[in-house]
Amino acid sequence: MSEAGDKLYSFEHSMELFSEAAKVIPGAIYGHVSPTLQVPGFFPYYTARAEGCRYWDIDGNEFIDYMCAYGPMILGYNYRPVEEAAAAQRALANCTNHPAPVMIELAEYLVDTVPTADWALFAKNGGDMTTFAVLVARAHTNRKKVVTVRGHYHGVAPWCTAIGHGGNTPEDHLNNLQVEWNDLEGFATLVRSHPDEIAAFIAMPYHHVTFDHQVMPAPGYWEGVEKICRTEGIVLISDDVRTGFRLHLGGSNEYFGYKPDLITFSKAMGNGYSISACVGRKELKNAAAKVFYTGSFWFSAEPMAAALATLKALQETSAVEKIYRIGKMLMNGLEELGSRYGLEITTSGHPGLPFMRFDEDPDLYMQQIFCAEVTRRGSFFHPHHNWFISAAHTEADINETLNHAEAALKAVKRQLNGVSGRRAII
Amino acid sequence: MSEAGDKLYSFEHSMELFSEAAKVIPGAIYGHVSPTLQVPGFFPYYTARAEGCRYWDIDGNEFIDYMCAYGPMILGYNYRPVEEAAAAQRALANCTNHPAPVMIELAEYLVDTVPTADWALFAKNGGDMTTFAVLVARAHTNRKKVVTVRGHYHGVAPWCTAIGHGGNTPEDHLNNLQVEWNDLEGFATLVRSHPDEIAAFIAMPYHHVTFDHQVMPAPGYWEGVEKICRTEGIVLISDDVRTGFRLHLGGSNEYFGYKPDLITFSKAMGNGYSISACVGRKELKNAAAKVFYTGSFWFSAEPMAAALATLKALQETSAVEKIYRIGKMLMNGLEELGSRYGLEITTSGHPGLPFMRFDEDPDLYMQQIFCAEVTRRGSFFHPHHNWFISAAHTEADINETLNHAEAALKAVKRQLNGVSGRRAII
Repeated sequence: MSEAGDKLYSFEHSMELFSEAAKVIPGAIYGHVSPTLQVPGFFPYYTARAEGCRYWDIDGNEFIDYMCAYGPMILGYNYRPVEEAAAAQRALANCTNHPAPVMIELAEYLVDTVPTADWALFAKNGGDMTTFAVLVARAHTNRKKVVTVRGHYHGVAPWCTAIGHGGNTPEDHLNNLQVEWNDLEGFATLVRSHPDEIAAFIAMPYHHVTFDHQVMPAPGYWEGVEKICRTEGIVLISDDVRTGFRLHLGGSNEYFGYKPDLITFSKAMGNGYSISACVGRKELKNAAAKVFYTGSFWFSAEPMAAALATLKALQETSAVEKIYRIGKMLMNGLEELGSRYGLEITTSGHPGLPFMRFDEDPDLYMQQIFCAEVTRRGSFFHPHHNWFISAAHTEADINETLNHAEAALKAVKRQLNGVSGRRAII
Repeated sequence: MSEAGDKLYSFEHSMELFSEAAKVIPGAIYGHVSPTLQVPGFFPYYTARAEGCRYWDIDGNEFIDYMCAYGPMILGYNYRPVEEAAAAQRALANCTNHPAPVMIELAEYLVDTVPTADWALFAKNGGDMTTFAVLVARAHTNRKKVVTVRGHYHGVAPWCTAIGHGGNTPEDHLNNLQVEWNDLEGFATLVRSHPDEIAAFIAMPYHHVTFDHQVMPAPGYWEGVEKICRTEGIVLISDDVRTGFRLHLGGSNEYFGYKPDLITFSKAMGNGYSISACVGRKELKNAAAKVFYTGSFWFSAEPMAAALATLKALQETSAVEKIYRIGKMLMNGLEELGSRYGLEITTSGHPGLPFMRFDEDPDLYMQQIFCAEVTRRGSFFHPHHNWFISAAHTEADINETLNHAEAALKAVKRQLNGVSGRRAII
């Protein structure tokens, strides 16, 4: 698929190691919706080193990273102020019998900067906190049902994964109700048909499903959801695990203008250190204290120190504005390139978590070739999952990536001209 | 409660900070069955610094630690070879889009050293892996029911916490069945009454509930359980999250002589770094690959490098033998002191995770005073939860602790003589 001048990456050592890994790890690389597995041989497998907005795989290939560890990296890999804060705390104490004082500083910082937060507590996974939020809602309302939005991801706990995922049972979903995104009338109808039964409505601030465009909230949607929740005594949970701190430092709900009762954060909060948080309004604090919830590493102080340093650095460097600007530059650049080459591209989502699709590509055939060809030139583009932009990405990085994208578009055109029928790689 | 010569700790600064924390954190210190909350003013609240088997709280009080972060610390806080391995990996890459090669090294190490392990995968919490193990068992057997032992702790997921915990619903327990510890006939009866319905039996290798003696497996118990599981096609899950690597480096089942299908590990595995693992027999590998299971930080390489260094150090330093010897010295010493002062003490459990109770103390009144008085002299004894011994504890540490215990026993006697009626502090 190359033409003269293109240096295309190969993944030979990676594929060998993958074969070794498959002997001792189920699936070799588990979890994550990974293009490495879905389109074998065209995407990176193992990270050797990471710095700023770039990383190197074990074949020595260098990538400008548009996944940011699927979200956690927001200031750049190995960002000094965060690493120094983590190191300083580690030198004192990390995981011990008790919290370190930094836990209180971190909670106070969130209470000061996140309007919804009258209190905070911390865990390890985003999913720890989405489940916790639901338990708090149930403890608060003394009701059982939870309304989710079809396609929204809240973790891998059985209650929030699709029925039919290995090992799940129908019983795991007995208290779940589901609505479509942006369907305010559908939500109102559901609520009317379950009077005094619904404990919580949980949703991401906006709609990102894999394999498709992202969809922003319709005008009036969140306002309407909030009104129904208030009227009916339903706890409104904003799951900001994926989006948190890329749209607004006070919670993505501030960006869209709604007021949840509980917010769950994780991913970008510690610039890669494992931490998650649930924050909430004071009315929910007693219920939160009633839920028995703990973990062996939840008082670990290293990730809390990293999180505090991350949140401060995001504020001090106006990272949200920078991420928006850089992400927008990428989105505009890709759409312009698409027009120029007659392969129309539409981007979607907030510029901090952009995605793209070709307008005429229902089976993602072009998408997969394009992302593979960009990736093989040095910019990691996931063909199926929304991307992430960090504050470490510069205009020069975006320009380099747009060069990769232009060469990749040419490769897509050659590929389209060279085959008689269309077919997706997977 | 003191006599001349005793220097008793106070917790004034800690209690002030606790009051501040309560403003922004539900319950101020959540989770963990904590004597700090149950017996306020007599136990430490916040860790300032930790090194070896000791730590210092924010009032400057120094403690020899008999909880070891509730298990994770096994080689000593700030153990250099582990910290150096973590630092070296961190300098390369921690949380990125892909695993680092160390994930495969760690899986291979477990496959080499844990007889049950034909494969391994990793997460953050022990509870991530106990739930995963149940899902794997269901995917493998195409059955739904899970048998647990009353009082065994497998995490805070709704399916494994007691009904009535805040936010839980009866539906969370619809597929649960329960038996008593060491009741082989009860298990056999349960299995007979649910033919072809039981996916898994999950239990800790031996019985440790809070507030009571630990109970070892009765002769023939595990052999009998294993036989029933094999005959009936039930997946046998050994939950080694708490016990793992303190009884045997191949899994605590090797210490007791049974062969599970799946083992869950966490706590001590990374000497404090957040990591958990599920390992299993090859027959379960396909089922494990079928369960969609992932987390934002599950490929983080720092805790994997720490875990690999921890497991190697445990082996190289014969830590298990040392922990047994030191734990036994503590147990024997406490029983001797009890006899000497006419307050008979019985210790229970494996010496790596010992517990004690006074023989005539049904309401734990003496236990709470005793542990508080030991703690206020410099050895942190939890009155309600089994303790943990590390390889960093020396004979000199135990002797110092036994001196604290002797002074505390005198204080208990004074207290018993000074009050007319008995009453527990809580």
